[in-house]
Amino acid sequence: MISRVSVRLISRRCFSHSAVRREIRDIAELPDRIHPKYQEARNNDLLTLHWPSPPRNILITKKPSAPSITTLVIEYAQHIHSTYPSTNLIFRPATAHEIQCSLPFPIYTAFENRDTENDPGFQDKVDLICTLGGDGTILRASSLFATTDHVPPVLSFSMGTLGFLGEWKFKEYKRAFREVYMSGANAGYGSALLEDEHHHGNETHSGAAAAQSEHNLLSGWSSIRGKSMGPGRGARVLLRNRLKVGIFGADGQRVTEPETETAGGDVYAMNEVILHRGIHPHLAIIEVFIGGRFLTEAVADGMIVSTPTGSTAYSLSSGGSIVHPLVPSLLLTPVCPRSLSFRPLVLPANTPITLRLSEKNRSEEVEISVDGVRMSKGLRLGMEVRVWGEELERETHGLEKHEKTWRGGVPSIVRGSRSGLGENEDHWVGGLNGLLKFNYPFGDDGASQ
Amino acid sequence: MISRVSVRLISRRCFSHSAVRREIRDIAELPDRIHPKYQEARNNDLLTLHWPSPPRNILITKKPSAPSITTLVIEYAQHIHSTYPSTNLIFRPATAHEIQCSLPFPIYTAFENRDTENDPGFQDKVDLICTLGGDGTILRASSLFATTDHVPPVLSFSMGTLGFLGEWKFKEYKRAFREVYMSGANAGYGSALLEDEHHHGNETHSGAAAAQSEHNLLSGWSSIRGKSMGPGRGARVLLRNRLKVGIFGADGQRVTEPETETAGGDVYAMNEVILHRGIHPHLAIIEVFIGGRFLTEAVADGMIVSTPTGSTAYSLSSGGSIVHPLVPSLLLTPVCPRSLSFRPLVLPANTPITLRLSEKNRSEEVEISVDGVRMSKGLRLGMEVRVWGEELERETHGLEKHEKTWRGGVPSIVRGSRSGLGENEDHWVGGLNGLLKFNYPFGDDGASQ
Amino acid sequence: MISRVSVRLISRRCFSHSAVRREIRDIAELPDRIHPKYQEARNNDLLTLHWPSPPRNILITKKPSAPSITTLVIEYAQHIHSTYPSTNLIFRPATAHEIQCSLPFPIYTAFENRDTENDPGFQDKVDLICTLGGDGTILRASSLFATTDHVPPVLSFSMGTLGFLGEWKFKEYKRAFREVYMSGANAGYGSALLEDEHHHGNETHSGAAAAQSEHNLLSGWSSIRGKSMGPGRGARVLLRNRLKVGIFGADGQRVTEPETETAGGDVYAMNEVILHRGIHPHLAIIEVFIGGRFLTEAVADGMIVSTPTGSTAYSLSSGGSIVHPLVPSLLLTPVCPRSLSFRPLVLPANTPITLRLSEKNRSEEVEISVDGVRMSKGLRLGMEVRVWGEELERETHGLEKHEKTWRGGVPSIVRGSRSGLGENEDHWVGGLNGLLKFNYPFGDDGASQ
Amino acid sequence: MISRVSVRLISRRCFSHSAVRREIRDIAELPDRIHPKYQEARNNDLLTLHWPSPPRNILITKKPSAPSITTLVIEYAQHIHSTYPSTNLIFRPATAHEIQCSLPFPIYTAFENRDTENDPGFQDKVDLICTLGGDGTILRASSLFATTDHVPPVLSFSMGTLGFLGEWKFKEYKRAFREVYMSGANAGYGSALLEDEHHHGNETHSGAAAAQSEHNLLSGWSSIRGKSMGPGRGARVLLRNRLKVGIFGADGQRVTEPETETAGGDVYAMNEVILHRGIHPHLAIIEVFIGGRFLTEAVADGMIVSTPTGSTAYSLSSGGSIVHPLVPSLLLTPVCPRSLSFRPLVLPANTPITLRLSEKNRSEEVEISVDGVRMSKGLRLGMEVRVWGEELERETHGLEKHEKTWRGGVPSIVRGSRSGLGENEDHWVGGLNGLLKFNYPFGDDGASQ
Repeated sequence: MISRVSVRLISRRCFSHSAVRREIRDIAELPDRIHPKYQEARNNDLLTLHWPSPPRNILITKKPSAPSITTLVIEYAQHIHSTYPSTNLIFRPATAHEIQCSLPFPIYTAFENRDTENDPGFQDKVDLICTLGGDGTILRASSLFATTDHVPPVLSFSMGTLGFLGEWKFKEYKRAFREVYMSGANAGYGSALLEDEHHHGNETHSGAAAAQSEHNLLSGWSSIRGKSMGPGRGARVLLRNRLKVGIFGADGQRVTEPETETAGGDVYAMNEVILHRGIHPHLAIIEVFIGGRFLTEAVADGMIVSTPTGSTAYSLSSGGSIVHPLVPSLLLTPVCPRSLSFRPLVLPANTPITLRLSEKNRSEEVEISVDGVRMSKGLRLGMEVRVWGEELERETHGLEKHEKTWRGGVPSIVRGSRSGLGENEDHWVGGLNGLLKFNYPFGDDGASQ
Repeated sequence: MISRVSVRLISRRCFSHSAVRREIRDIAELPDRIHPKYQEARNNDLLTLHWPSPPRNILITKKPSAPSITTLVIEYAQHIHSTYPSTNLIFRPATAHEIQCSLPFPIYTAFENRDTENDPGFQDKVDLICTLGGDGTILRASSLFATTDHVPPVLSFSMGTLGFLGEWKFKEYKRAFREVYMSGANAGYGSALLEDEHHHGNETHSGAAAAQSEHNLLSGWSSIRGKSMGPGRGARVLLRNRLKVGIFGADGQRVTEPETETAGGDVYAMNEVILHRGIHPHLAIIEVFIGGRFLTEAVADGMIVSTPTGSTAYSLSSGGSIVHPLVPSLLLTPVCPRSLSFRPLVLPANTPITLRLSEKNRSEEVEISVDGVRMSKGLRLGMEVRVWGEELERETHGLEKHEKTWRGGVPSIVRGSRSGLGENEDHWVGGLNGLLKFNYPFGDDGASQ
Repeated sequence: MISRVSVRLISRRCFSHSAVRREIRDIAELPDRIHPKYQEARNNDLLTLHWPSPPRNILITKKPSAPSITTLVIEYAQHIHSTYPSTNLIFRPATAHEIQCSLPFPIYTAFENRDTENDPGFQDKVDLICTLGGDGTILRASSLFATTDHVPPVLSFSMGTLGFLGEWKFKEYKRAFREVYMSGANAGYGSALLEDEHHHGNETHSGAAAAQSEHNLLSGWSSIRGKSMGPGRGARVLLRNRLKVGIFGADGQRVTEPETETAGGDVYAMNEVILHRGIHPHLAIIEVFIGGRFLTEAVADGMIVSTPTGSTAYSLSSGGSIVHPLVPSLLLTPVCPRSLSFRPLVLPANTPITLRLSEKNRSEEVEISVDGVRMSKGLRLGMEVRVWGEELERETHGLEKHEKTWRGGVPSIVRGSRSGLGENEDHWVGGLNGLLKFNYPFGDDGASQ
Repeated sequence: MISRVSVRLISRRCFSHSAVRREIRDIAELPDRIHPKYQEARNNDLLTLHWPSPPRNILITKKPSAPSITTLVIEYAQHIHSTYPSTNLIFRPATAHEIQCSLPFPIYTAFENRDTENDPGFQDKVDLICTLGGDGTILRASSLFATTDHVPPVLSFSMGTLGFLGEWKFKEYKRAFREVYMSGANAGYGSALLEDEHHHGNETHSGAAAAQSEHNLLSGWSSIRGKSMGPGRGARVLLRNRLKVGIFGADGQRVTEPETETAGGDVYAMNEVILHRGIHPHLAIIEVFIGGRFLTEAVADGMIVSTPTGSTAYSLSSGGSIVHPLVPSLLLTPVCPRSLSFRPLVLPANTPITLRLSEKNRSEEVEISVDGVRMSKGLRLGMEVRVWGEELERETHGLEKHEKTWRGGVPSIVRGSRSGLGENEDHWVGGLNGLLKFNYPFGDDGASQ
């Protein structure tokens, strides 16, 4: 297999130090991922994370081109490897190559030259995503899962100001990882659950993975000292609903973007889809339909369809309202419209929005960007972008009450406090006030006019 | 009874014309109200109205001080009385006195000097509300039901431009009333249902009402010619969720407003609650809490908490976004804030919002208005207003699938088209474009810059 | 004279301390005011203040109801009296009564029960205004001169955050007053000028004042140690242009407000004129004319006509742009308009703006406020408010080039730096950034989206 | 000369029709341009146009790629040629080639392959500019004069909705041209002036031009029937002040754009200068200085510096206020700023604004556009754009009072009415209401909320 070859070639670079362990391995060797459940809590809009068994495959992503963060990634990886020995650490290829010589144990990646049709990818193996960086890093990590409706939970660490996405401060990483790792261990599953996991272990993985699974079990929750964090100390999760984006040609056929490897499927966006005239001198002219019905013709620099999470990103700069992430909605915000009366709209999350290039549009195409990444081909005459909110489904069929869970969305682990009480909205209110300087008061004399 | 006395005094004014029928009767004589069901439709966010038996007690309200509309009210009342002989027409007292001489049959009202503790009010008797006027007329009609979570369905006729509330044009009144009246007659209930109604007739009403109930049955759906409007022709209903508003004193006790007759209960608002400095020269200083957590201190002319329905009213003038009525949310919009960075917020409908007068506030009180009506007492130091979205509950307990229904909200009958197809959002998109001149295009040369 | 009586009554309160000096005297006893010149500087939009002779009559005003500021007023008054012995200190009546016992020398005021037709007022006597407070204090002080087009120069001290009006910090008061007092002493006038002043002394004042004038000369500039502050160290002045406001009845006749004592004249406003619906439930409907031509009909909470100085006050809260005080313009800003397309306008300063109550207006009147003070009578049907910018006239007739000066406006002394170089816009840029938190950056990660 | 060659080559294309006259001649053959005066009128902010002698060289430009307008251009040219036989018609090269076969007389152009250093250009020859199109056409025409501070008067005809620039309706073209052509003929100059013109004829032009000048005189004002339009019927002119734009490299040296042929000079813009990130994914980071002082760091899609004329163009789409063209000011408007508190600013016209690329900017360059035309090179690190308002100078030196005139700006002839009274602001108020749908009222029920 070609991936093995590349592993050997690369691992040779660190040979002089400690050849045995310094390898980059293929994630195909790892056991398949574990799907956690998300349970509703009383008096709380956040869900609680419950692992059926300890997470094993941990993806760590970081902000690119930031050497100072690379050092922290290595520190973080070493901590997890030594404290949670049954875990396997996964990185994106570039990061794996950058740090493999600094880590005295094998790490994993999804090689870029694999057969994407048949070889497993991140979406098949990753149990938990950890990000070190800002919003952009979370967006890039979530885009690795842009074609699945089961994104692993995301634990994000901010390298600077805390933002809206429930980030933890990096200095809290030991507590944060422990809280996530143990989440569910005390939720009434007990040792029987661990036993059960033994027999229901996923049979599809390779021999090496099977042996590791055995190891996981022995070195899992039961081996972590001080595992009991008390009931109710499960990690809290905000399911952020994404956009589903489909691009359709003049022939009504779905247009796919080769880079995203989505054979005929929709793409998910966590923040927004933007149509923009880009470098074309004339304003874009875009017909907007909601629920299949013509709404308006936008003459503007562009149009944004945003999630509530994206309401504090580009939509905000364009004059949109700030929408709480728990409001099931989409925002339709124009960018520099040639109209005095194009106020931003907030629409139901399940209303399909269609943006079609008008025949009056003067340039050949307008640009399409998804979560800040411009697509290689723009929207041309006759084409349209269809957007709707990802449905967050409560899975109840055949489940006991305490087993009800959810699917869809990006399960974002939100920062908890030590006390664990009354902190539901900490990240959002904190983001508004700390990051956006929302309603920043005027000087001392604010109340007099 | 005092109400009878007033009836006689008043009816005497019309004596010379036709003394027999020209009476204003007490609604206490009417049979109790019939509660319709609201059923979910496939591929449609609107609900369908289903009467268990034909509606009998029809409240008609109108825009005040508009003589031209009074003429239309009389025309409308005569049509309903003659075409649907089993119905009883109810008016507000002032309207009843204004038009009784013009109608050759008895009409009903809730006399203002009744014992509000014991005597029945509109909320006990009205099956269906019809309004002739604008938004203000609908707001005033719904405020008659500000203390119940079962508002009767509202059929509204616009006297001018169609707005956001699904109004019908007055010239369509025959078709509109027929559609509402018949809604559910063909939905699988059949004659058995009518029979059933006979035996389950409400036993609590007086003898006179019981006789009328009998009459209703005989002259109900079966007597209306051409009753079959085909399956799927039921009236479509948008459940508008209201605000629940509670005002609390410095002692934490609920403060009640005598005028609204709500003994210790919350008040419902269809559009918004506004705190405003009114005539006080200094800006109001208001602490805002969401979900019990401090969000910000507003230094502003005022603060608005609005429903999506209210997003096109005062919130819009203050710079708020336009929110579709099916987005379960509340808007928090400042009025002329002394800050460059107080962007309007859209919050989850079930998040309690508390507005508390700050100790820094310089005036004695700030005004409180609910749906445009200023309360007699303002908000003083230590007091707070608590607002949250009315929950729209799906009642499923012990019901067959086809019987599931909803409670809460203002069931607004939205204008349908003759074809009955694909017109779900007609009123909202129509309101945006027709009423608000949303995204009104610039002159012919709009696309060139 | 009644004023003497009140002086004796009041001064008795301090008798036990030092009866001789603790008096409140009538400003009628003071010599008439000295009119300074304002000269244009090269490469500088600010003017330079030139006293023809040292200022003598100093009005000191303060923020009301702030005991801590009263202490500072006394400190300030004592400094001026001891360092500049030829000056006379003037206060508003309430302040004079409040502090007279704390000052061991006579002070002056304009008694409220004087004959305003014949007795001199502040506008006849005050050479220089000093304010201790915020914007409101400056507005109140300038309103004492609302009927003259020759407002004395204003030296303002901020008690908190520096604002837009060129305030000095109070701790700088010695340097600030010295800079203003000496301004012009070295500008080529020399001793000849002082001599000249001797002979041209104002002949209209009383004998007591004449004696004082003599004293002024001897104890004026020549007696102040270290008077030479070097050429170019004159106090810099920003002439803020005010609004002229006239209110006209349905009969076309000017309506006067008794409180402002302006017999048939216009009133000047430094910030803005506001029409507002106040407590009336219906939106105000106001016809707007510019240059006598109908512009639009505003349906709104209110309308603001503002100076550039006022652009950072209420107009800003209502969504207006920020306009630099040197742009000769008026702002027309709607307050909560019922329109999606009423963008604020910036109009030429010399364009008359007329606001007329529309016949469609539903309430009896709308409120009129001038610089935050509500007028006793509102605008009724048929009445109109006419507003135009005060003309800042360059007086050149018969003057040598270096004598050219200006009239009109409020001559605001802007804070200078020690270096005296390149600080022209300090107050405005400083106000934007320091007070308004203009373009306040997002958290550390501001540049990434 | 190369230009003559191209003339012969081109004219051959029409040979078969009428070889004699169908030529495109070089504007070098034309007499030099005549500079009109602009006189101030009483009670009127507009100036009055005064030709010292009848205009001769008329430039006609049109909206490109609009065949229907080409037909109107031909009609217009034929009318001018036949009614005002002493005029010469000039076109841009492409238009000249397009229409020369349709006109039975020679037309002129500035050939593109001429020696721009020595050969005369439009700015040396054109007396009057006529445009047929929209705002874009006026901008393109004025950009032909982007390097001179003496732009000829512009008479513009709208092909659709009337806009802000004082356009005339095309169907009024006979009256409009006559008004402009005759403007000044009756203003006290009389026949003496015509005589005078004879002797002071420009001596620098070629013999052919001299002969034409003679012809002009004979067939000028005196030959036009009904020339007397009465006093005060002169064409009214609004001097629109432009931006002067200079681009400077990291070395402090001015950077020139080859295309604009301005060897080391500034470029003028009529609407705005825009810096924009263009296709770069990261927001532009731009330092803003006013009057040499740091104001703020903009993190945004872009920054606009606009004239009042440009306030209704792109600045409006970006949220800027609408500024009357007679307010001497510049607008600083951010495009989608990453800040809640970046309100647009209005600055004095004579304040230099400097936009410098920040060292924090992440892309290599940001785009620069002047009046909608993107420059070939963007702004790179260390470079800056300096912008200030063109000064409109009143030229008084050595002139009689009635001769005082103005220089600078784009003299825009604004549409007059037949009555000629009280129509000063027609175009601006008309543009606001007719083109922008300013304060467009809500539906019939606008006043109720």
